[in-house]
Amino acid sequence: MYNNNEPLLPNINFPSDLRKLSVDQLPQVCSELRQFIIDELSHNPGHLGASLGTIEITVALHYVFSTPYDRIVWDVGHQAYGHKILTGRRERFCTNRKYKGLSGYPNPEESEYDSFISGHASNSISVGLGMSVASLLSENDKDRQVIAVIGDGALSGGLAFEGLNNASTNPNNLLIILNDNHIAIDPIKGGMSQYLLSITTSKTYNRIRYELYRSLRKMGLINEQGKAKIQRITNSIKATLARQNNVFEGMNIRYFGPIDGHDVKDMVRILKDIKDFKGPKVVHCITKKGKGYKPAEEFATVWHAPGMFDKATGKRIIKRDGKNPPLFQDVFGHTLLELARENDKIVGITPAMPSGCSLNIMMQEMPDRCFDVGIAEGHAVTFSAGLAKEGKIPFCNVYSSFMQRAYDNVIHDIAILNLPVILCLDRAGIVGADGATHHGAFDLAYLRCIPNMTLASPFDESELRNLMYTAQKEAKGLFAIRYPRGSGYLVDWETPMQEVEIGTGRCLKEGTNLAVLTLGPIGNAAAKAIARAEMERGKSIAHYDMRFVKPLDEKLLHHIATSFQKIITIEDGVIQGGFGSAVLEFMADNGYTPSIKRIGLPDHFVEHGMPAELYHEIGIDEEGIYKHIIEF
Amino acid sequence: MYNNNEPLLPNINFPSDLRKLSVDQLPQVCSELRQFIIDELSHNPGHLGASLGTIEITVALHYVFSTPYDRIVWDVGHQAYGHKILTGRRERFCTNRKYKGLSGYPNPEESEYDSFISGHASNSISVGLGMSVASLLSENDKDRQVIAVIGDGALSGGLAFEGLNNASTNPNNLLIILNDNHIAIDPIKGGMSQYLLSITTSKTYNRIRYELYRSLRKMGLINEQGKAKIQRITNSIKATLARQNNVFEGMNIRYFGPIDGHDVKDMVRILKDIKDFKGPKVVHCITKKGKGYKPAEEFATVWHAPGMFDKATGKRIIKRDGKNPPLFQDVFGHTLLELARENDKIVGITPAMPSGCSLNIMMQEMPDRCFDVGIAEGHAVTFSAGLAKEGKIPFCNVYSSFMQRAYDNVIHDIAILNLPVILCLDRAGIVGADGATHHGAFDLAYLRCIPNMTLASPFDESELRNLMYTAQKEAKGLFAIRYPRGSGYLVDWETPMQEVEIGTGRCLKEGTNLAVLTLGPIGNAAAKAIARAEMERGKSIAHYDMRFVKPLDEKLLHHIATSFQKIITIEDGVIQGGFGSAVLEFMADNGYTPSIKRIGLPDHFVEHGMPAELYHEIGIDEEGIYKHIIEF
Repeated sequence: MYNNNEPLLPNINFPSDLRKLSVDQLPQVCSELRQFIIDELSHNPGHLGASLGTIEITVALHYVFSTPYDRIVWDVGHQAYGHKILTGRRERFCTNRKYKGLSGYPNPEESEYDSFISGHASNSISVGLGMSVASLLSENDKDRQVIAVIGDGALSGGLAFEGLNNASTNPNNLLIILNDNHIAIDPIKGGMSQYLLSITTSKTYNRIRYELYRSLRKMGLINEQGKAKIQRITNSIKATLARQNNVFEGMNIRYFGPIDGHDVKDMVRILKDIKDFKGPKVVHCITKKGKGYKPAEEFATVWHAPGMFDKATGKRIIKRDGKNPPLFQDVFGHTLLELARENDKIVGITPAMPSGCSLNIMMQEMPDRCFDVGIAEGHAVTFSAGLAKEGKIPFCNVYSSFMQRAYDNVIHDIAILNLPVILCLDRAGIVGADGATHHGAFDLAYLRCIPNMTLASPFDESELRNLMYTAQKEAKGLFAIRYPRGSGYLVDWETPMQEVEIGTGRCLKEGTNLAVLTLGPIGNAAAKAIARAEMERGKSIAHYDMRFVKPLDEKLLHHIATSFQKIITIEDGVIQGGFGSAVLEFMADNGYTPSIKRIGLPDHFVEHGMPAELYHEIGIDEEGIYKHIIEF
Repeated sequence: MYNNNEPLLPNINFPSDLRKLSVDQLPQVCSELRQFIIDELSHNPGHLGASLGTIEITVALHYVFSTPYDRIVWDVGHQAYGHKILTGRRERFCTNRKYKGLSGYPNPEESEYDSFISGHASNSISVGLGMSVASLLSENDKDRQVIAVIGDGALSGGLAFEGLNNASTNPNNLLIILNDNHIAIDPIKGGMSQYLLSITTSKTYNRIRYELYRSLRKMGLINEQGKAKIQRITNSIKATLARQNNVFEGMNIRYFGPIDGHDVKDMVRILKDIKDFKGPKVVHCITKKGKGYKPAEEFATVWHAPGMFDKATGKRIIKRDGKNPPLFQDVFGHTLLELARENDKIVGITPAMPSGCSLNIMMQEMPDRCFDVGIAEGHAVTFSAGLAKEGKIPFCNVYSSFMQRAYDNVIHDIAILNLPVILCLDRAGIVGADGATHHGAFDLAYLRCIPNMTLASPFDESELRNLMYTAQKEAKGLFAIRYPRGSGYLVDWETPMQEVEIGTGRCLKEGTNLAVLTLGPIGNAAAKAIARAEMERGKSIAHYDMRFVKPLDEKLLHHIATSFQKIITIEDGVIQGGFGSAVLEFMADNGYTPSIKRIGLPDHFVEHGMPAELYHEIGIDEEGIYKHIIEF
């Protein structure tokens, strides 16, 4: 409907430009912004659905508030593409998620408009509360507004609740925008989501008024003219009910809504009305994920991050064909189903990632034995512990970087009782475009120190299957398996499953000059580097796939220690305290003194890019390993 | 009022004995059980207040349910003393929290009546849900009842909310007993607690009825005889309101209450009524912490764990006098206040432990700059990050074992942006009577691997002050300080504060045969052992207090590596990946090959007892270190 107007977006470089427009021009801005994101993401993949759903919220916030002085804290930053485009990054948006390009998430190091980091869900209320409290404590910034934008998916995370629970205990003016679309990556089933739905649909006050009128009339106590009086009565009841009728109000957070999160003009009006109200407040906005792009509206899960697509036809461009190795994720999913068919104690648990980790494969056949608990990693692990305590064998699949949120649950709820829970740490090591917040860098270090822990990583798809088979067959205690995001190495991966002796590695290749010890799939790059070093330099290099970082294969290590003076350890994880350190500890404890070079992720946060680019940068691709070998 | 009856408790060895009694005898059982706990705890210290508050709940649950077949999952197990006494452990209760005695928390390894571990708060709903779901999935145990007993304090933890949020998504019959006393260790201020209070006090339905009646009457629409009709009207409204009117109902959890949690007969009646209702349900019980013992009722915080006391007079028996070294906790508290007086950017944060960590000292003088966020460790850390982002210098004090719950918050919300948050890890190392769940065993390993981390531990009180001073003076990034529970070493601890150069250790004593490298206060025990070994064995032993585990003092380590062939490292933390491993890594990375012996906590969970007993058991007291030295 704005087709005849001059385009507006090209002239909006910063929110200050946006604020020069009239309110009536904002729908056009939204429309152009939406189209810009669709255009860009069709050829440079990213998180489409969430960002389309927050267009109007984004425009309204930057229109009403004085960003960057006022702070917008985005929860799960991939809803913030519109924000990035309106805050000085429209022309660089084509580099989104690319190596050395824009981050896919807000990052204060990228722009002063990005108030905080938000790769992991549910932190925005706590962060925003800290900022708002700090502003009120300051000398000069008492009028600063802080706005946290959180989806109902992120609201299922315990951290968000902890933030809400504290929102009223100290003076602050935090504004929470609840972006309610009833879907995270997969549809939301939790109780809170149901509760929000009941707020949205039942419009209690109006209904009370109506029912009261109807009942009184039926009993002959009132006539048509009494209708107005009923309104006065219900208003008096309303005050009584308000606190209890809405959990936010009950928690001393003023509640406004629900409002249409796609009516930008209405949003502007409401935000202007309430912006100077003191104290914490929540505006409940109803939005649609993928809003404005039909395929994304219809299939929200698929279009959460659809990859490249033809924007005219809405067809996704999928390059994969049957001859490539499968994703580790799919191997996990198919293998778990195979195992679950044989072992009826097996159950599957995921915190909001059924499609991401491929638990959806088992879910389709065995819905009763699979549990998507929402964005709630801690609960996923503790819930698994409860299942295990009553005889089930839970495969609890949590991305490595998200397992950081369930660390105490692993220690307190599984390890102390040594319950037979199988933790599958998907996306261990470098993950790629999602960057620093998502790399599974720390798991080896933070899990290895826990007593009762069995901790393994498979060399390839076939080994993943074997480890999964072994973990459920023994099922004697805590067993963690880490594997990376993306494709494996074997086209014919559906190998018969074999039990692996716990705490054993294997010799992939004999040698005499140097021993290379690897853990996990990075061993494949190492194998190529070893072959090249042998061919080009005439060295004889042994290669051991250690498979378990805990317990270590001590027999094999004694053999290695007595056979080699030079050892290289290679892992796709931080080298402080990781696999290489476990080898150092073994050597020291047993009085060996070989030269050991540890190779792994460095002691800084690695940025985003294609995994190949990142492995190259930090020197643990084939080329980098080759160089390490010949230098050593 | 039952004084004339024969005592009942001596004949109750198991819940089956309890169930033989009539309902009318239960108040007497409660009275005797209460007195038994008061008697016992007056001379063997423990958690008094919480256990007195749950007497009637405990008796009613064991009376109505078929424990141990039915499962009671206690949240924060120190409310479970009554449970222990009724389940075969009355006579051993005198060993509660003692070395080799009963654990202060439920522990399945101690009794089949203890369904789960519960040293850390907020896990009971997730655990119970897992158990209940597992029972319904099983062949033979579909009628098993699972009951989670959770306090309103524990309800502020995000994990509890994650559990609630999932309680209705899969078939289960979980019964949640909400033990609502409006106090954790310190009074609860969070929004959820306010919300529960509003449920408790306003009795909406009755009030609607009354107001409606009053209004209609005032308007002349109804007379006294119409009162009954109003009741019918409000009942129809009630159904409409129910789902929204109560957040539990809104989350599809049936809500019953509030009821008097000290009326055991009423509790039995209600539990019997609802026990066979399908689906998740919550019974909201109002209790009083310390119920039945006047001093404990009046001063609940003090009487949470009062130590020994004279039960007749209610006077606590405090042995401390002014000439002993202070608690590290008090040194933290007084020093923080001193620093905060000089530096107005300093703020203090604690998750529900103001008295435990002594933040209450600053709180009294500067209430606006101190934040007790409730049992919510993740939020405590992320909230601190928000404060730091806006220019404050937060001292966020979290017990070491509880920091496990904020691990991702440290990485994602502080470390990536390297915000100037000072994490004070109280109760690092062995804590004593609280046992396996509470020892601060893992922090060195799980924090050391994080980039941007500065991680230090003071040798004594004076060094704690210096580290705190340094952390806030520089305030350039993430700075963690770990120190133990209990008394330090210096009577005159109020030393002038000095800046410490970050990443530097110090030589406490020169030597030639062996270098002992220690981290933190355990260096004091090491110093004695070294003196003894030198005197008795004529060895010359150097002692270095390394002070920082990250960054390491590389200059000092180069000196040590080139001066000694034998090195011992000693730490009060797990040796996998900890301080000793950091030293191994330095040596390997720099091509040194000394013999290194690492001494620290073993790779199993250490039980409870006096710290001296435990250090002795694991060989890191003076005696143990002495033996290590002479053996090496």
